[in-house]
Amino acid sequence: MKLIETLNWRYATKRMTGEKIPEGDLGIILEAIRLTPTAYGLQPFKVVVARNKELLDEIFKKSCPQLVIQQCSHLLIFKAKKKLGPEYLEGYLKEMKRLRNSTDEYIAGYRSKIRKVIDNPQVNRFSWMIRQTYIALGYATIAAAELGIDATPIEGFDSQALNEILNLNTEKEEAVVMLALGYRDEKEDKLIQLAKIRKPMELMVERIY
Amino acid sequence: MKLIETLNWRYATKRMTGEKIPEGDLGIILEAIRLTPTAYGLQPFKVVVARNKELLDEIFKKSCPQLVIQQCSHLLIFKAKKKLGPEYLEGYLKEMKRLRNSTDEYIAGYRSKIRKVIDNPQVNRFSWMIRQTYIALGYATIAAAELGIDATPIEGFDSQALNEILNLNTEKEEAVVMLALGYRDEKEDKLIQLAKIRKPMELMVERIY
Repeated sequence: MKLIETLNWRYATKRMTGEKIPEGDLGIILEAIRLTPTAYGLQPFKVVVARNKELLDEIFKKSCPQLVIQQCSHLLIFKAKKKLGPEYLEGYLKEMKRLRNSTDEYIAGYRSKIRKVIDNPQVNRFSWMIRQTYIALGYATIAAAELGIDATPIEGFDSQALNEILNLNTEKEEAVVMLALGYRDEKEDKLIQLAKIRKPMELMVERIY
Repeated sequence: MKLIETLNWRYATKRMTGEKIPEGDLGIILEAIRLTPTAYGLQPFKVVVARNKELLDEIFKKSCPQLVIQQCSHLLIFKAKKKLGPEYLEGYLKEMKRLRNSTDEYIAGYRSKIRKVIDNPQVNRFSWMIRQTYIALGYATIAAAELGIDATPIEGFDSQALNEILNLNTEKEEAVVMLALGYRDEKEDKLIQLAKIRKPMELMVERIY
């Protein structure tokens, strides 16, 4: 299957050429993110598309000293929401009513289902929203790979510094993961020749038939 | 682009027909999960493939009263690791050395990079591993959709009950999310005719060019 070939082609590129990806391809990657399934369809994240050289340099210096930050074409910064306030939820329900012509009764039921989760003090809302964000991160890596574009997920940066650079209100949202988009530098990236390391299937899967 | 068409076709099916998916297609979905990128390549999760009727009925009764549990072809249960002990890490590094013929110096450097994260008391390891698991969840939904198979992510089940049903040692791992695989029941699933609800692009993306 083509997807498996594509997934074997992709890897987390550590050196990029700096060449820009076509804006049309970027649009497809963003559309894949937009179409990502999320809990209740709430899409509790936003994406900053950083292409500005000064901004990328600042991120490199203050938050994440990985060369791909400076060598990528575009850097996607995923910001997860820290809470789902009534305004956000009601906006979503209004859109649902508009698009699906849902009855008030249906909307009320859906509202109460969602509130049961987001009002539950045992649920760590921010963790839950970050998980949804990671589904989108994965979608973006597949969309990129299908376009022949390299995509390197980046964790482990100084998120406080990045939040400051982006001037985020951290009561509302935080940068949680990044994705550098661009093209692998085949001469400079030593990872290219190295085998992919993955568990054998039998260590990953248990079947109960 | 074909992927975008596929993503528009997919939705979280609420009624399935019970028809079984081909084992070969299941293998492709599992391979996509196996090829999922994870932090440091650690793949901190396993997947239980449940097909046994009695087991699915028990999950339906005790953990998750959603009809797709009983109507699906196979239920994937993603278990995330709760900690990354030295044994797991050393096994991974050994495999890296074997596959990539890495030098001892390189392996030592990689070990210390990983330990800096997993030994950091400020890092919630379980949350971090769950995030990696959600990337795999996303990969599985795309692989399924490309095969014309429906896939419904399921959260919000009683995880304690599910851990007990699967007899998990919850000091080591926990069931964190499920994915029901099968075929949509076009007559019974009311969601089929309804529009997909997604934020418009301009509310999801900010560009800094």
